[in-house]
Amino acid sequence: MALISPLTPIFVAVLCVVIALVFRSLQNRDSASRPVSNNPQREARPWVDEDLQDDTEISSKDNEDDDEWVEGGEEDLAHVPYTPMRYPPEEMLERSQHFYSLLNQRRSVRFISPEPVPRAVIDNVIRAAGTAPSGAHTEPWTFVVVADAETKHKIRLIVEEEEEINYRQRMGDKWVKDLERLRTNWVKEYLDVAPYLILIFKQAYGILPNGKKKTHYYNEISVSIACGLLLAALHNAGLVTVTSTPLNCGPMLRALLRRPANEKLLMLLPVGYAAADATVPDLKRKPLDDIVVYI
Amino acid sequence: MALISPLTPIFVAVLCVVIALVFRSLQNRDSASRPVSNNPQREARPWVDEDLQDDTEISSKDNEDDDEWVEGGEEDLAHVPYTPMRYPPEEMLERSQHFYSLLNQRRSVRFISPEPVPRAVIDNVIRAAGTAPSGAHTEPWTFVVVADAETKHKIRLIVEEEEEINYRQRMGDKWVKDLERLRTNWVKEYLDVAPYLILIFKQAYGILPNGKKKTHYYNEISVSIACGLLLAALHNAGLVTVTSTPLNCGPMLRALLRRPANEKLLMLLPVGYAAADATVPDLKRKPLDDIVVYI
Repeated sequence: MALISPLTPIFVAVLCVVIALVFRSLQNRDSASRPVSNNPQREARPWVDEDLQDDTEISSKDNEDDDEWVEGGEEDLAHVPYTPMRYPPEEMLERSQHFYSLLNQRRSVRFISPEPVPRAVIDNVIRAAGTAPSGAHTEPWTFVVVADAETKHKIRLIVEEEEEINYRQRMGDKWVKDLERLRTNWVKEYLDVAPYLILIFKQAYGILPNGKKKTHYYNEISVSIACGLLLAALHNAGLVTVTSTPLNCGPMLRALLRRPANEKLLMLLPVGYAAADATVPDLKRKPLDDIVVYI
Repeated sequence: MALISPLTPIFVAVLCVVIALVFRSLQNRDSASRPVSNNPQREARPWVDEDLQDDTEISSKDNEDDDEWVEGGEEDLAHVPYTPMRYPPEEMLERSQHFYSLLNQRRSVRFISPEPVPRAVIDNVIRAAGTAPSGAHTEPWTFVVVADAETKHKIRLIVEEEEEINYRQRMGDKWVKDLERLRTNWVKEYLDVAPYLILIFKQAYGILPNGKKKTHYYNEISVSIACGLLLAALHNAGLVTVTSTPLNCGPMLRALLRRPANEKLLMLLPVGYAAADATVPDLKRKPLDDIVVYI
């Protein structure tokens, strides 16, 4: 009992403060090592979360070495003269008008013809997509082109199952009025019918020769820009597609297509000629004045 | 002294445990309300963090109502027949080859001529960008075109200050070898020289008539696709640019250009003719086999 001297409470108090500090530092380390997930739905499907966590995207905003997308990266590449095509003002105006008219005829189409499309055309549209700029010239994209009927069908099953879950979970929702109408949304026949499915993967990071990870800055923005070029190239060739982002299916589709863990699905495009009876919603685009501000 | 009884140490210990638990719960609440920031730089400039938090982007991956980008959104739009241009196989192949050749000549150029460019051409390239698909047809983009010399100079000062901070903070880093070489990286003369700066903002959310926020699903991907079309349209017109993503300057540039809080800077493109003595790094693009997988 001699140990319980009048000074003991002070020692205990100091000990407690030390424990509290240790506790705090452990927590900090813990929270720094994983991204915040404040959506309760995520907890329910951890394997989906795993794939959707894009640490590279998040950290890229802080660690970017250069805001300019220096083509050539960190290497000391020689600089060479560059003299691009240049047109007189009238021709320039005419070209810009023609290009706008071309792209303005593009629409997202879900009614795709099963007719075959020359593979050389698909090669060229992907080459065109691959000319996109990318952060530090990492070219962080992989285009998986699926023509095999069995693989297309497996993709359809994966996508439709996920879609059906989405729709069924919302049955009580105010959005949902008509089961028949919904059905047309989750059944994606074009995934079987289109001669090609192009699945675009972003490489969230690269692998260095020493096995370490190499950050791919702005990989999602880079790959999305490449997809923009791809959409333009497809339309220019007289082909149609519909932009879809089945991100919840990403892990299963990645496994099916045997892509490595650093690749994440960004987009899935069914590609072919438009079906003869194709229709599109009668929508309008915003006029120029609604999207531009001159200063 | 009667207060310091043999039992006091136990009370003090219990009190400390309670304090530790309170401490912990406060920390949890704190860390749940803001995204993880493991970069000490962030702490120093909290106003930057505020703007970089893109909750919409993160939550959109879970709440997406439809993976297909239904053009026409939730409204019950009439469907109309759609018969896009269709070309015989040889012409299709020729068009796809030509489009690839065109885009393959595009390079990021930092040496921009001060010569004026017809504004009607800028109108057309932005119209072309505005034909991009977007999640639920929200068209979540604003293109701010700056031709005013004073505003361009203010933008330059903001961007260069941020860049200089980035570079100076890395002076001790193994990356940094040559101050002169760095200087050419953070001084961005083209921001004064280029006849136009196009700042592309993504609308992270919309505002409904009742004042509530409307989620813009996949707004960053949508706007990046639009930027891809913009890059193609600029190149097609004989103009050059360099893709830059000065995200840390986003809040200051947004304030300078008086854009609303729902708009976040995604990209800044200086636009003009290439300077007569323009050079580019002598880089190569990946061959087709490195970016495509056929199944």
